[in-house]
Amino acid sequence: MDKIKIAICGYGNLGKGIESEIKKLKDMELVGVFTRRNPNTLSIKSNVPVISVKDMNKWTDKVDVMIMCGGSATDLPTQVPEAAKLFNTVDSFDTHAKIPEYFEEVNNSALRANKTSLISGGWDPGMFSVMRTYADAIMPQGNTYTFWGKGVSQGHSEAIRAIEGVKNAIQYTIPIESAMNKVRNGENPNLTVREKHLRECFVVVEENANKEEIVEKIKTMPNYFSDYNTEVHFISEEELKKNHSKMFHGGFVIHSAKTGDNNNQIMEYSLKLDSNPEFTASVLIALARATYRMYKKGEFGAKTILDIPPALLSNKSGEELRKKLL
Amino acid sequence: MDKIKIAICGYGNLGKGIESEIKKLKDMELVGVFTRRNPNTLSIKSNVPVISVKDMNKWTDKVDVMIMCGGSATDLPTQVPEAAKLFNTVDSFDTHAKIPEYFEEVNNSALRANKTSLISGGWDPGMFSVMRTYADAIMPQGNTYTFWGKGVSQGHSEAIRAIEGVKNAIQYTIPIESAMNKVRNGENPNLTVREKHLRECFVVVEENANKEEIVEKIKTMPNYFSDYNTEVHFISEEELKKNHSKMFHGGFVIHSAKTGDNNNQIMEYSLKLDSNPEFTASVLIALARATYRMYKKGEFGAKTILDIPPALLSNKSGEELRKKLL
Repeated sequence: MDKIKIAICGYGNLGKGIESEIKKLKDMELVGVFTRRNPNTLSIKSNVPVISVKDMNKWTDKVDVMIMCGGSATDLPTQVPEAAKLFNTVDSFDTHAKIPEYFEEVNNSALRANKTSLISGGWDPGMFSVMRTYADAIMPQGNTYTFWGKGVSQGHSEAIRAIEGVKNAIQYTIPIESAMNKVRNGENPNLTVREKHLRECFVVVEENANKEEIVEKIKTMPNYFSDYNTEVHFISEEELKKNHSKMFHGGFVIHSAKTGDNNNQIMEYSLKLDSNPEFTASVLIALARATYRMYKKGEFGAKTILDIPPALLSNKSGEELRKKLL
Repeated sequence: MDKIKIAICGYGNLGKGIESEIKKLKDMELVGVFTRRNPNTLSIKSNVPVISVKDMNKWTDKVDVMIMCGGSATDLPTQVPEAAKLFNTVDSFDTHAKIPEYFEEVNNSALRANKTSLISGGWDPGMFSVMRTYADAIMPQGNTYTFWGKGVSQGHSEAIRAIEGVKNAIQYTIPIESAMNKVRNGENPNLTVREKHLRECFVVVEENANKEEIVEKIKTMPNYFSDYNTEVHFISEEELKKNHSKMFHGGFVIHSAKTGDNNNQIMEYSLKLDSNPEFTASVLIALARATYRMYKKGEFGAKTILDIPPALLSNKSGEELRKKLL
């Protein structure tokens, strides 16, 4: 059997996750790592070429699926519409509000090139979207609640780091258990953002920084913190490195609906991840398999995980799935 | 918009669930109830015709999807291969070991008639199969565990009722919390059937029945009870009716895998259902929508929930799904 040839574009935490997880699979192989840096300065773990993104167009025929591992803020919106002209692509674009517009752009590129591009894979958007969609399709009269955490929010951590006097910071998003339990009990509560999540910050400051002022600036920061209850702890750089460098995360999708004569029906999906990037990588790899299969069937254009039958992600045959997993 | 015309075959708990839940939807309507009984003796809640199954062939053009609501032991294996020659069908066949052979039979009928038949929908098989498949596709190096309950097992309840001296009985399957917690902690335990589930029985006996003998017969019954720890409680018929007539059920699919450098990744899906038949009905209705859409696209033959993109179950457009649920 020919293996599916996978390349990575971007060698950060996510790219490294793809590299480590793809080795476990028999039907796929890594064939190259693309980077914006000087390829000679990048040392990777695998024995595959490191290539400049400028040379991407020379690799069109050598790569079945390009997994785009850049960030959603600036990398993916510029890189993917270009890459989709040359390759089948998979990405984890997660700026929810901009997904419709991003979808259109990638769709145009992919359709013109007769390629297939899976956008916004991972866990949210991704597996959480799948759960929300099944739940809403099955019991549209109900309510779906998403809770995140406990885990690090990169965006919130960076917002703290931008404050004057802050050397380093980590922010944890923490779901509020009592709110989750109301949902699980079928109470269908109306929850404000403050009632759903807590924000806990661990901050390292410069010498002589004004801590009170920093606390005030964090807690009143619009969009990021002002709508939440926020706790701020000052710690040393050593403590931060020792106790707050793990990339764990997770969350919950809970759907609560009533059927018949006031019967409560609760669906709950949760993830508890020691490594956020490695789990995201695992989802993207399975989506790369499905994307290549859609491409082979002539299903071109942009797709999301909601457009793909679960069986298409699996390395097992339909027969095997019906026998073992159905 | 034309509504999808749904008919029910079999008016038990599941059929009644379809009848109650379909009323909540704008894109589908119930057009008839088929029964093996004398149609004149069947009183239903909806204002639609009650029709003898013998007259099914007269309804081919008036029904878009026939939801088959019979039992898996004897009804569905005979009814569905016949119905699939006349209609698109949806069923909840749940005898796991016989699914491959059942699939082949229904597939042959549906292919010959250019119809589409969804088999084995519901929650297990059904939503639990979906979860097992995603989990295994994403992290095939891991282990998937399924726990059922707490809820009534009809098969086990009937097995007790067949014992001499027993008037009535209800059996609850109860998942063992400590085993679930081992899985959730990433311990990847090897669990025997006894370590996964308890069986609790509430039994009403005839006057002068030998209770000790009944307990012995239950606890040693092969396949049903001998491999489990089983508790037996004797109660009155009144108590049984008052406290043990609810059709609640539920369960858990937990997948545990390691990625990278020994990182635990845990996915968990659970259902807590006040009404097992009404939830199953809700899943079958969403699957009927998807089945009709596949039929319209010319995707004939037998299908399972694993072959269907989540979006196809939903009444929302792709655009709306990407905007609101992705």
